[in-house]
Amino acid sequence: MMQHKTETKTILQKENNFSEWYNEILKRAEILDIRYPVKGVYVWYPYGYKLRNLIYGILRSLLDKEHEEVLFPMLIPEKELMMEKEHVKGFEDEVFWVTKGGSTELDIPLALRPTSETAIYPVFKVWIRSHRDLPLRIYQIVNTFRYETKHTRPLIRLREITSFKEAHTAHASRADAEAQIKKAVALYKNFFDQLAIPYVITRRPDWDKFPGAEYSTAFDALMPDGRAMQIATIHLLGESFARTFDIVYEDKDGAVKFVNQTCYGISERCVAAVISVHGDDHGLVLPPEVAPIQVVIVPIVFSSEGKSAEVEKACFVVCEELKKAGIRAFLDNSDERPGAKYYRWEMKGVPLRIEIGPRDLRNNRCEFVRRNDFKRMQVPLCDVVPEVERTLKEINDCIYERAKESFFANIHKSEGAMEGLRRKGIVSLFLCESERCGKEVEERLGVNVLGEAVYEDEDEEREKGEGGCVICSKEGKRVYVARAY
Amino acid sequence: MMQHKTETKTILQKENNFSEWYNEILKRAEILDIRYPVKGVYVWYPYGYKLRNLIYGILRSLLDKEHEEVLFPMLIPEKELMMEKEHVKGFEDEVFWVTKGGSTELDIPLALRPTSETAIYPVFKVWIRSHRDLPLRIYQIVNTFRYETKHTRPLIRLREITSFKEAHTAHASRADAEAQIKKAVALYKNFFDQLAIPYVITRRPDWDKFPGAEYSTAFDALMPDGRAMQIATIHLLGESFARTFDIVYEDKDGAVKFVNQTCYGISERCVAAVISVHGDDHGLVLPPEVAPIQVVIVPIVFSSEGKSAEVEKACFVVCEELKKAGIRAFLDNSDERPGAKYYRWEMKGVPLRIEIGPRDLRNNRCEFVRRNDFKRMQVPLCDVVPEVERTLKEINDCIYERAKESFFANIHKSEGAMEGLRRKGIVSLFLCESERCGKEVEERLGVNVLGEAVYEDEDEEREKGEGGCVICSKEGKRVYVARAY
Repeated sequence: MMQHKTETKTILQKENNFSEWYNEILKRAEILDIRYPVKGVYVWYPYGYKLRNLIYGILRSLLDKEHEEVLFPMLIPEKELMMEKEHVKGFEDEVFWVTKGGSTELDIPLALRPTSETAIYPVFKVWIRSHRDLPLRIYQIVNTFRYETKHTRPLIRLREITSFKEAHTAHASRADAEAQIKKAVALYKNFFDQLAIPYVITRRPDWDKFPGAEYSTAFDALMPDGRAMQIATIHLLGESFARTFDIVYEDKDGAVKFVNQTCYGISERCVAAVISVHGDDHGLVLPPEVAPIQVVIVPIVFSSEGKSAEVEKACFVVCEELKKAGIRAFLDNSDERPGAKYYRWEMKGVPLRIEIGPRDLRNNRCEFVRRNDFKRMQVPLCDVVPEVERTLKEINDCIYERAKESFFANIHKSEGAMEGLRRKGIVSLFLCESERCGKEVEERLGVNVLGEAVYEDEDEEREKGEGGCVICSKEGKRVYVARAY
Repeated sequence: MMQHKTETKTILQKENNFSEWYNEILKRAEILDIRYPVKGVYVWYPYGYKLRNLIYGILRSLLDKEHEEVLFPMLIPEKELMMEKEHVKGFEDEVFWVTKGGSTELDIPLALRPTSETAIYPVFKVWIRSHRDLPLRIYQIVNTFRYETKHTRPLIRLREITSFKEAHTAHASRADAEAQIKKAVALYKNFFDQLAIPYVITRRPDWDKFPGAEYSTAFDALMPDGRAMQIATIHLLGESFARTFDIVYEDKDGAVKFVNQTCYGISERCVAAVISVHGDDHGLVLPPEVAPIQVVIVPIVFSSEGKSAEVEKACFVVCEELKKAGIRAFLDNSDERPGAKYYRWEMKGVPLRIEIGPRDLRNNRCEFVRRNDFKRMQVPLCDVVPEVERTLKEINDCIYERAKESFFANIHKSEGAMEGLRRKGIVSLFLCESERCGKEVEERLGVNVLGEAVYEDEDEEREKGEGGCVICSKEGKRVYVARAY
């Protein structure tokens, strides 16, 4: 890495002061540099950007099966941005405007895209002509902009979202669009499962859906401070944008019909979730799948001995074997003490460390140390590759298990009134559909209503039960609430 | 692909009307859609974006050997942009300004990066402390913006450059920085060689260098209309930005010194070059290395016979075998006539077509058709994979040879005065270093001075010879001139 400073060995405290922990981790693990002179925008360090690329690589490979990647312009003319009334109401306070080119005032102000519906759909209008052009499924990964007036936070609340993955689809019928919503939910589940991130899926309340959508489905993860963080959203747009932008197709029978649309997005909050859910007081803990370095090899030489050519060579051989097997291995043969090396690579979340010293070598073995629980094991040198593969899988499972335990320990079900409810984690309670009752719960508990739980199978669905709204006692549905980012 | 329209078989004319040919190709091969309602910004189609990704994949893999990828913010505060005087003079008329967030006037106008020196170097100041932090070599691939008032042109002259690869390096000494310039030249040569694009390399005249640089080296390709197109630039910045942004390091001896810097960039003009240099009257001709589809397989069935299960199966098997061998193969088993398929895939520049019909099958063979010259050959089915590999290599060589022939046929050497010079292609003539004489040549010939040729070896260097400036007759150097994009 490019910086060679001596870090002090302060123990970070994730549970007690998550916010400080988060900022320290971003800095010490070299994910983001927050010293850029514009509020709410940050610099990706090389290590952070590698992590970002590995995470988005998974997302891309899932999307590429049924979507095609495209790239639309970042500047949206005022007129197009303002066309869909509901949509513009939701965004107008947050839009950055370009008004000047050189010293010339522009005739038409140009918006920095806050999201790309109004950039993409005028082009869908010319791309789509016949039922044979449907379904149309595209995505792009782009920078988007929000004039956030609230407190900004790296990766979580940004003025420049550097890595917004947005998918947009058009279909011949509402049934096809709804089937796409299900596919998108399944795709996102697959994505977050691969990141070992637990989540709840909810249908957002009608008064909190995406501006212009018929309904919005969202994934929320749970942060270490007990607050929920929205990490993905999926919207059924129906015909609303199609009617605004006149996106029609000729059906088999010659009839001209509006398309039915969906869109769904994920931002770099997925990186924030990986960091926050898995990290510990020693730094990052990365799922092997997305770790820029999966295995670090540290030669153990005592200062009195100087460098040992044999140990160095054994380390080199192990590293090359691992690389040949497709494992991202790195040999740290710098001049630092082993302790300083442990500290750095633990901070950076490298899942597995291999130590080789003279005594190991005499016994034809090496020592594995797992980042997630610091468990040690001795491994014969001839078994290194298969043992690394097995151990990385094991580490992933452990990380996921721990994340799930902590997640489910913080999801509570309330059967009765809302007095005395826990305010950490996610609580489910009965609520009617009115905005009035929703807002009252939000105010009195200091939470956000995430929405009605979306369950996969019927057993869970029945589990929800029935009950009266905690505010008005009318018929209610089981709804998740939580303090939210 | 997503559009199913019947294209008419108009023959395009690349040589006679390059400009029209270029626009038609972008549309018909589905590279870019120019129907976006903002001047100078365009939409990448899926096929075009795949081509873009393959080309940038080569660039990335070359850079990753010695550079680290990062990502800096797109918004640059007015103050930082304005700090380096030479630099700002070069860009101030071309900068887009964000002046509003929501309905609020921003306190500090924010520039859309025209290039990122002024975004990156204030951060270099905090990243670099010691000689151990050097050399620092980073790159990013980002969208940049220019308020172009001239005629815009897709991929070539843009208001949003969607894919600007910019590398920035810092070194302990001027010698190190100059060595980096040489490495960057070698890297770019490697890149364009892989794209089979011939070029001239020149040192830009002092009065036309990058604003803030000590000197600029550039690569120019030759477009089919005889105009040169700058496709890469490499700049020695020396200490100018380091002094402005106070980027210093502590040397081994404890002395505090300014770093020495370089930067070098390539934009999506590299995609424009691939399209323009290799394409012909039938459409794109893609070097196999960057072709989104390298081999298309077309089953030949006569309409009277309907579909033949055996032919279909044989095509499928061939396609799977090729994919297994790592070749990007596609089986076009749509219902269209073979002729319509040929037309589409020729337009899209697929390097090799494999046809299999009932008679081929009876003889256990198939037919190869090369896109670059439409040469046919019969190949036994059992040899398909190695023959495809060999043929793709051959096609690449042919494409490159043809490109070089046409390139060198359009480079002319002038020994005497400038009257009667050819005005198509690149001409070299003797010119002194003064801006006055340079500008006079540009005006009188209607060309741009590209600069003094940078040669690799001493023989070529001597070849340049000596002569008097065509304007003032004082001592001159051999300099390339051409009409330029």
